[in-house]
Amino acid sequence: METIQIKAFGTEAAEASLAPLRIDRRKPTAHDVEIEILYCGVCHSDLHTARGEWGNTIYPCVPGHEIVGKIVKIGDQVKNLRVGDTVGVGCIVDSCHECDYCKEGLEQYCEPGMTWTYNSPDEHLNTHTLGGYAERIVVDERYVLRIPENLDLAAVAPLLCAGITTYSPLQHWKVGPGKKVGVVGIGGLGHMAIKIAKAMGATVIAFTTSEGKFVEAARLGADKVVLSTDEAQMAAYQGKLHFILDAVSAEHDINAYLGLLRVDGSLALVRAPAELLPVSAFSLIPGRKSFAGSMIGGIAETQEMLDFCGQHNIVSDIEIIDIQQINEAYERLLKGDVKYRFVINMASLKK
Amino acid sequence: METIQIKAFGTEAAEASLAPLRIDRRKPTAHDVEIEILYCGVCHSDLHTARGEWGNTIYPCVPGHEIVGKIVKIGDQVKNLRVGDTVGVGCIVDSCHECDYCKEGLEQYCEPGMTWTYNSPDEHLNTHTLGGYAERIVVDERYVLRIPENLDLAAVAPLLCAGITTYSPLQHWKVGPGKKVGVVGIGGLGHMAIKIAKAMGATVIAFTTSEGKFVEAARLGADKVVLSTDEAQMAAYQGKLHFILDAVSAEHDINAYLGLLRVDGSLALVRAPAELLPVSAFSLIPGRKSFAGSMIGGIAETQEMLDFCGQHNIVSDIEIIDIQQINEAYERLLKGDVKYRFVINMASLKK
Repeated sequence: METIQIKAFGTEAAEASLAPLRIDRRKPTAHDVEIEILYCGVCHSDLHTARGEWGNTIYPCVPGHEIVGKIVKIGDQVKNLRVGDTVGVGCIVDSCHECDYCKEGLEQYCEPGMTWTYNSPDEHLNTHTLGGYAERIVVDERYVLRIPENLDLAAVAPLLCAGITTYSPLQHWKVGPGKKVGVVGIGGLGHMAIKIAKAMGATVIAFTTSEGKFVEAARLGADKVVLSTDEAQMAAYQGKLHFILDAVSAEHDINAYLGLLRVDGSLALVRAPAELLPVSAFSLIPGRKSFAGSMIGGIAETQEMLDFCGQHNIVSDIEIIDIQQINEAYERLLKGDVKYRFVINMASLKK
Repeated sequence: METIQIKAFGTEAAEASLAPLRIDRRKPTAHDVEIEILYCGVCHSDLHTARGEWGNTIYPCVPGHEIVGKIVKIGDQVKNLRVGDTVGVGCIVDSCHECDYCKEGLEQYCEPGMTWTYNSPDEHLNTHTLGGYAERIVVDERYVLRIPENLDLAAVAPLLCAGITTYSPLQHWKVGPGKKVGVVGIGGLGHMAIKIAKAMGATVIAFTTSEGKFVEAARLGADKVVLSTDEAQMAAYQGKLHFILDAVSAEHDINAYLGLLRVDGSLALVRAPAELLPVSAFSLIPGRKSFAGSMIGGIAETQEMLDFCGQHNIVSDIEIIDIQQINEAYERLLKGDVKYRFVINMASLKK
């Protein structure tokens, strides 16, 4: 298969810093588009993968799955996209198309397994996929999203992962007018969840361990902010919430939050604490409650989310960095020192 | 308030055996019916409460919430029942009627709290409620169920708790034709779940730790039986089940069962292990799965369940005992030595 060589930024080993790399991309096949990447968001998964923290990283590793850019080339069978279109690529670049889940538009749960934008088997080049910290990417048009024109392009990038990861469960659990929704953790995911749940018409209650985030949470759109370490504040919401989106990756007491749910309420995890989470049967049985999880979203739903964000003027709060700052950005990410998402200006890769 | 004194069987202390007692019942008020109890099922909750194992028992304690009998007296405002009717009383004898949940027919989740058939505050007599191990019971007609005529009356008694506890979640999580349903634990609740799920049209897979229960599970209607301690047998059902009803009160690995669910599948606990159950975020997130619980069912749904059982000729498998055998029955219950429910012939109380 014909390839082109491009510039990228990645790492050769778990302990190594990210540094310039040259990588191959396939030349677009009939159904592919080639995208010049303008911005790429920095997701915590990028860091986990680059550093081999999930134990499954294939090196060299080029992270990045919050990709926006412009189409520069298309295959001759591409139907719905044209050169010059502003588009996005999220976490998914392929799936089987044949299982029940793919047919339902749930490519993220594809039965034989979807192809992640990075660190997945790449059947085209007989290697593994390499992500968006790069000049260009080549993707089957079915996995390419249209970007609403009214939104700031750099600030759109994080919608491709943080946006859909929060939008999908909020939709699935029917958040909307008349519903009280808790958002636990005000970070990259949580700040998107507050904005989106609010735009869906829900009453949003943000939970944080830090009083310092009260003003921020209100600015983002939360109707109320609760200090989760304060028992009296927590008690005021006992049995009051229809849904909780839990975006905390640190160990925390799930039972305390299950207690805040109304009958038939659900709490959905969107980040995965490494530790097992001890749950009491008495947190679930007396109110028919559910402790659930949710992972990104399907392609059609990602487009729906982008259109929704266009309509409601929602983007991520971002800090733009050059690719040369990525290692420092990872360190700041670990300290929670970002409001709320780093986005790499890919023009910096040309330096 | 006027009362009548009747014979009952109960206990004065956690350590004491059950023995004959004399207790008061109110005379039926305008909306009450007085029921001569013919049979009363023996639920594991009876034992927990009699022995003070949940720490909240008020003595003297008269257990029993799987009650069937005949109406012998009615209040002058009773509209839907008549003297001579064969009726049942389950776990609920009152609730607030005014909260959102009561209005939705979810009296079991009544916001200020429902009145349990035993060991709840009894506003009529300014004491606590006393259950069905007794000659008679007086209950507001709204909490009294009609019994289908075609069913064996003694074997109907356990439907009032074991039946509705399994029917309600099977209904709520939309079990029916085309659905694969797991039932974990083949005891008082599990054997009802197998029968009901099968009658609902589902494919039923029973899970047990004991190969000795394979023939039994098939007899009850299970399409397949899986030895849950056998990794290969478990692996064959990875990602295959739409719903799992978990009726095990011993500590067990929830993650192993969550792995058997399809995308969007739920596992509902209907018994409450005392221990916290450690759940991995990775058991929930990659398939949008839910770990849930469910508690009995509302009054309208209990009637629906009884009618469904009438239509499908479903009753509990029982062993009839005299009330004088109750202490021995409790010991056998602890050993799992019953197929699958003890039912007390209340005529024995007259001895």
